[in-house]
Amino acid sequence: MTSPERFAALWRSLAPIGNSPQGYHRISWTYPDLACREWFAEEAADRGLRVETDGNGNLWAWRGDPAAGDAVVTGSHFDSVPGGGGYDGPLGIVSAFLALDLLSERGVTPRRPIGVVAFTEEEGSRFGVACLGSRLLTGALDPERAATLRDRDGVTLPEAMKSGGVDASLLGPDPARLARIGTFVELHVEQGRALTAPVGVASAIWPHGRWRLDVTGQGNHAGTTRMAERHDPMLTFAFAVLAANKEARLNDAHATVGRVSVEPNATNAIPSAVTAWLDARAADQSTLDSLVAAIGTRVVERAAQDGTAIAIAAESVSPVVEFHTALRDRIAALLGGAPVLPTGAGHDAGVMAGHVPTAMLFVRNPTGVSHAPDESATDIDCAAGVEALATVLEELACR
Amino acid sequence: MTSPERFAALWRSLAPIGNSPQGYHRISWTYPDLACREWFAEEAADRGLRVETDGNGNLWAWRGDPAAGDAVVTGSHFDSVPGGGGYDGPLGIVSAFLALDLLSERGVTPRRPIGVVAFTEEEGSRFGVACLGSRLLTGALDPERAATLRDRDGVTLPEAMKSGGVDASLLGPDPARLARIGTFVELHVEQGRALTAPVGVASAIWPHGRWRLDVTGQGNHAGTTRMAERHDPMLTFAFAVLAANKEARLNDAHATVGRVSVEPNATNAIPSAVTAWLDARAADQSTLDSLVAAIGTRVVERAAQDGTAIAIAAESVSPVVEFHTALRDRIAALLGGAPVLPTGAGHDAGVMAGHVPTAMLFVRNPTGVSHAPDESATDIDCAAGVEALATVLEELACR
Repeated sequence: MTSPERFAALWRSLAPIGNSPQGYHRISWTYPDLACREWFAEEAADRGLRVETDGNGNLWAWRGDPAAGDAVVTGSHFDSVPGGGGYDGPLGIVSAFLALDLLSERGVTPRRPIGVVAFTEEEGSRFGVACLGSRLLTGALDPERAATLRDRDGVTLPEAMKSGGVDASLLGPDPARLARIGTFVELHVEQGRALTAPVGVASAIWPHGRWRLDVTGQGNHAGTTRMAERHDPMLTFAFAVLAANKEARLNDAHATVGRVSVEPNATNAIPSAVTAWLDARAADQSTLDSLVAAIGTRVVERAAQDGTAIAIAAESVSPVVEFHTALRDRIAALLGGAPVLPTGAGHDAGVMAGHVPTAMLFVRNPTGVSHAPDESATDIDCAAGVEALATVLEELACR
Repeated sequence: MTSPERFAALWRSLAPIGNSPQGYHRISWTYPDLACREWFAEEAADRGLRVETDGNGNLWAWRGDPAAGDAVVTGSHFDSVPGGGGYDGPLGIVSAFLALDLLSERGVTPRRPIGVVAFTEEEGSRFGVACLGSRLLTGALDPERAATLRDRDGVTLPEAMKSGGVDASLLGPDPARLARIGTFVELHVEQGRALTAPVGVASAIWPHGRWRLDVTGQGNHAGTTRMAERHDPMLTFAFAVLAANKEARLNDAHATVGRVSVEPNATNAIPSAVTAWLDARAADQSTLDSLVAAIGTRVVERAAQDGTAIAIAAESVSPVVEFHTALRDRIAALLGGAPVLPTGAGHDAGVMAGHVPTAMLFVRNPTGVSHAPDESATDIDCAAGVEALATVLEELACR
């Protein structure tokens, strides 16, 4: 088999899980996520790797004894956004197993332990906190707060973990586990069209965050309430959507309103309340700050005009992540001068970068589509990603 | 007891059903609706009325033998919008029973049978078709289409009816039942602030309708997709909300977008599709037509700018209803020159008006709020409504 064929063969064994005509629904601790975890355990066992689940539900597979320390860890996440693509996350895990296969074939004997990790709920699709597993591991998220997180049906994170057979009493920072990791490398599909070579190296993650907009008005009858007497929160919300888009264009940044919840959401009733989530990102912190401030100012003005009330609250805000410069340059050189580029997307690697030297590899995305069913990468590019990851792991684990 | 106290006593026996801090959720064939139906059967039995459920799930209670024909029927509906008020619908049923009590006390012996009706799903909150029960009864809704209606969870109307103990095999027009009705009178809480006397008489129902807007774009990653490369249906939707509001003001009409559904509705994903419902109403058909056309034109233009696709489909459109003029004038005179006014709200009386001489009484709404928890009417005004209804029933059933 050629290397693209080998990639395609392993990919096909994972690809059907949680897929549908509306895209992937691999939501943490639901059936497709548990099926992905089983797949992980089986692939690890086939390779003679020892599998552990940590207290935060992250999965680890080890070649060598992690207690030896200075380990090289690679991996990503299984979970998707609702209706997402298949590559965002899983590509990094599939590539990790295939890179280990390449090292074995090459007769490489690592001096350091190598780990493959699958972090829990990177997308934040169920409990609203992105990079949930890596934030808990590193202490960036208070376990007491995590224990009170609820999904849209009111199920708590501990209840969800329990349904997946994981005891949530150990939720929280795991400094001993973290201390064993010498380097972390995450391979990920690129999520825009900025990468024109098959494989690139990350320079930084844009500062980004999520803000919740709560607009309240006066629920009323759609047929009988005069236009002048309305306090319609849908108007303020609609204005916020357009203002966010306009300000993002003006600031050369990104702003999106992708999620909304309307009360009572009835055709013949003026809503009483609309809650929306603003996702905003920019190349630097001051641009992000002024973007969010500008949107906020305009929406508050509009609310006064609509006779509605608005509250804006930051739900999770991530400062810029500059990846380890020496590691990044070493990897780019090792890969024959691979392009180095920033990304607007958050990643577990961004969380890990605050604690251990961390790098990211990107695999080209021909359409740039991500978080949607059309997300893709060619088998040839994915195989090139596996080769690159194997080269990096060999360098880091043997030198 | 004074008459407001008598009203309040019966009102209190019904008021708790389906209530919550977020308003009433009396959705057809759910538990609160079934509890209201039980209340109806008990109140009817207490008064020696004979209760029937017709093939469309409408409830009837009879004083006298309906087979005699030329019956006088009054009533309204129990169901609410989600998070609605307590008066819209139930006031007409409670007032019907109390008006019958007044006739008994006055020793009135009706020459014609008198019926009290509770129509099913007037609001269309569960199956999307307003005045479902009266439309089925009169043949305005094809029973084959009705049998395929589904709620948001995919439950069909026949399945929901079955769960309420009603056989749906008899769904559809019931001309024999309709032929027995000589006059229909619906008492309803006013839904704006146009009525300044305790009781008024309806002249007409504005032409109105519901249109579904399906906007499709390209789902993508919120963090990495350049603003210029987006096809974001949320933008087109937001524009539609603001355009509908603006055009309604310009045309002296009403337009509302109260319901929206977003795919995948994730914070970090540009939506792939947004579906919204436009509720539009105007004093006359040509204004309504030009309002909807103007909104459509502007939204189609905007969709081209956003790189999205838009489809607009009428879901239910009701032409103007002019209530029976002679009956209306007779009732207004009988009530000592009660004010006569139109309404922007649809009612079962509007459906019945196409088949039998029909009138409506309105009870004053001090705040004008409706379809929301703050909807209200005073006990004094409600008692005046009961008196007026009793006077009208006596006139119609005895003269």
